Amino acid sequence: MKKEKQQGITVKKEENFSEWYTQVIQKADLIDYSKVSGALIFKPGSYVIWETLKDHFDKKIKKDGVQNVYFPSLIPEKLLKKEAEHVEGFAPEVAWVTHAGKTKLPERLAIRPTSETIIYDSYSKWIRSWKDLPLRYNQWVNIIRWEFKNPIPFLRTREFLWQEGHTVFANRKEAEKEALKILGFYADVFEELYAVPVLKGIKSVKEKFAGADYSLSVETLLPNGKAIQGATSHHLGQNFSKAFDIKFLDENENTCYGWQNSWGISTRSIGIMLALHGDDKGLVLPPKIATNKVVVVPILFKKDYEKVLKAAKDVSKKLKKFNVIFDDREDYSAGWKFNEWELKGIPVRLEIGPRDVAKKQVVLVRRDDGSKKIVKISDVSSEVSKLLVKIQESMFSKAKKFLDSSMVNVKDISGLKKAVGSGKIGKVNWCGVSSCEENIKDKTSAKSLNSDLKLKGLGKCFACAADAKFVTYFGKSY
Amino acid sequence: MKKEKQQGITVKKEENFSEWYTQVIQKADLIDYSKVSGALIFKPGSYVIWETLKDHFDKKIKKDGVQNVYFPSLIPEKLLKKEAEHVEGFAPEVAWVTHAGKTKLPERLAIRPTSETIIYDSYSKWIRSWKDLPLRYNQWVNIIRWEFKNPIPFLRTREFLWQEGHTVFANRKEAEKEALKILGFYADVFEELYAVPVLKGIKSVKEKFAGADYSLSVETLLPNGKAIQGATSHHLGQNFSKAFDIKFLDENENTCYGWQNSWGISTRSIGIMLALHGDDKGLVLPPKIATNKVVVVPILFKKDYEKVLKAAKDVSKKLKKFNVIFDDREDYSAGWKFNEWELKGIPVRLEIGPRDVAKKQVVLVRRDDGSKKIVKISDVSSEVSKLLVKIQESMFSKAKKFLDSSMVNVKDISGLKKAVGSGKIGKVNWCGVSSCEENIKDKTSAKSLNSDLKLKGLGKCFACAADAKFVTYFGKSY
Repeated sequence: MKKEKQQGITVKKEENFSEWYTQVIQKADLIDYSKVSGALIFKPGSYVIWETLKDHFDKKIKKDGVQNVYFPSLIPEKLLKKEAEHVEGFAPEVAWVTHAGKTKLPERLAIRPTSETIIYDSYSKWIRSWKDLPLRYNQWVNIIRWEFKNPIPFLRTREFLWQEGHTVFANRKEAEKEALKILGFYADVFEELYAVPVLKGIKSVKEKFAGADYSLSVETLLPNGKAIQGATSHHLGQNFSKAFDIKFLDENENTCYGWQNSWGISTRSIGIMLALHGDDKGLVLPPKIATNKVVVVPILFKKDYEKVLKAAKDVSKKLKKFNVIFDDREDYSAGWKFNEWELKGIPVRLEIGPRDVAKKQVVLVRRDDGSKKIVKISDVSSEVSKLLVKIQESMFSKAKKFLDSSMVNVKDISGLKKAVGSGKIGKVNWCGVSSCEENIKDKTSAKSLNSDLKLKGLGKCFACAADAKFVTYFGKSY
Repeated sequence: MKKEKQQGITVKKEENFSEWYTQVIQKADLIDYSKVSGALIFKPGSYVIWETLKDHFDKKIKKDGVQNVYFPSLIPEKLLKKEAEHVEGFAPEVAWVTHAGKTKLPERLAIRPTSETIIYDSYSKWIRSWKDLPLRYNQWVNIIRWEFKNPIPFLRTREFLWQEGHTVFANRKEAEKEALKILGFYADVFEELYAVPVLKGIKSVKEKFAGADYSLSVETLLPNGKAIQGATSHHLGQNFSKAFDIKFLDENENTCYGWQNSWGISTRSIGIMLALHGDDKGLVLPPKIATNKVVVVPILFKKDYEKVLKAAKDVSKKLKKFNVIFDDREDYSAGWKFNEWELKGIPVRLEIGPRDVAKKQVVLVRRDDGSKKIVKISDVSSEVSKLLVKIQESMFSKAKKFLDSSMVNVKDISGLKKAVGSGKIGKVNWCGVSSCEENIKDKTSAKSLNSDLKLKGLGKCFACAADAKFVTYFGKSY
């Protein structure tokens, strides 16, 4: 019956996470490599995840008053250099265009590693009066950062897709309020859509965005004990508005510099979600992100062949709103199909065989925990609805348990070393000083993820003699 | 009352089209220039048009079975050179990346001028059997073509946005059928959404896509007498499948090369629509493409000020589904507001003053022809619905009349010269030969737009001694 060999995952996630990850995203047909080293092809299976995120987030920010725009992807070198800290951060990874056709360009052009500089050059022209504020634009674009570390699909690639929001306010308070609100939107994407719990917080001075006053982030932990940054919302203060001369007349006719934010979430988020939820059989997609939420597999024998097939087809029709896949392929066994759809992470498998038809029932199998439930055909649509909600919740709470149980209160450097050595995140009272962070990294190979937004550090810093200011999460990190 | 000066269009469309076009798209706040010569900033007003087109076309192709993907934007030089005719066509306009950070790359990378080469390199890996076909992928991306001619916003820019579909079929017939179907989708976008009538046809050998067997196109005429290509659907035959080794085993286990198409529509289409419909007051947006379909302007006097304002607000609420703008700004006069929204092309203006409130009526003003209609407040939503349909139809039929009346049957070279000299399109019986086309261009400065898909050329070629094969449209062209 089987016409083609099946390619299951050949390693266990727990035993060799990085090989497991590499296999699962390729075998589930999400990505492929290209002849451009470090760049990735998003196949339909992964691009559709990006589209779902995009729809969700785009609606959210539009409702909040943000408008979409598109700025050129090439940035003249002079512009990129205008904000000193910014160019220092990005220049080492910039891809430079030097020629067009056979002509050498008079000035090198950077492919955007992020678009602050080209956007703010325009903002300085567009903004004149307090009436022009707040100005809140966003763009969905591709980004090139020529990293020299080993590429990891989704998590670290030389080209990726993201949205970047760029906003200007008349005062610091409003800007800071927005930065925090957007952080909440990102936490919502991870927790509600991806079922990935995150730590919301503020980055250290050492780890903040090049050119920001401070950066807010959502972070989480992968099963291999490495923490990863999910998305960032930067408060830029007046650093760029001063460098780019973004000024306005306030209501009293005083000239003021604008207060700015920039914020982004990228295709990296897809990798985080896949890495966290997948298991030894393949992907496990949270229902809210899965395009096809159900697959119907008829269990066919010679007896009642046509009858079962027809019943399966009828059930599929009832489940149309879940973008059901009706797998009636003849040259594959039911077992082969089970493996295939488990590999691809479809949240619910519906089985129906001769006995089920006789009893007017079907079997629903959850991808996340493999449990089965028999339901009446007449109730199938509402049962599937309920089950999908349950799966989403249960995937989140399983992931939340993992994150919570991976956090260890740590009192000193050796405690942190032990924690990150066993794949955990250390929670510490910390001074926040960059030289202290460098010392911690040397001794433990951990860096700060972010610091809690509400808790204040108590007593002395866990790592040096200074006073603690923050409650901070440290971990090994991507 | 007026706090700010108003910037109307200072030239007439009929007298100085190119200055009119430059003014209207800037003053209606659609675009701005950047420090990158020849690249354009899409401000919210134009980007939202692109989003509307994207939604419309994306739904259409997805329903037809096409899936979205994303391929890297950088193409190694070796890949770009694989199809000889293709590289010859695109190399003169390629932007080359030569360095990353401080490192010189071992091989130059082209920023995609189109993605056939990088996509088909993968297709050769992915396609093995007839079961893998048809393979129909599409991507929405930015494109760089470093043209050295003068840039014209939307119509000719060094960076633009488009979708590119890339499909592979098991035989020529299916591929050709798709190419034609997609052409129909493009005609639909122009005619149904943009209210722009188009000529569907086949490009000449000289004007076809570099690497195609033949190219299908939609073309139209702008009011300045210049024709313009709106979108193209190319049948690539086996040219690329042979260059890239895209082979499959058919049902009889024979090795065959795939039959391919590629097809695209870009942000150029926005410029065509704006240029065709706009008038001396500014943009005229077809209702189906306009995000805000109605603007409500209260006509306020001291008498009944609050009453009128409230009535206007109530009416606005009834029109929510049209994304109504309620313009209650206090520091602008009604006349100023009329000009503003006319400049921006909002399809319907709703006026309501004290007398209207007393009579429980409002005035609807059409942007396209300025005509007014008084309707009862109780009927306002259904009246606006009907009016929007009418405006869309009437804009299309006006444009259709213009296109039809601009086509002249031409018998010889001097007839064509006269026709294109007076801003018309010449319809001719033509041989289709490239050397003949070059001769025609030398003598008339016209080139072939496309040839009718059904009509066959009769008698001798209008320009040379050969037999006519096609009924072809010639015109001055962008």
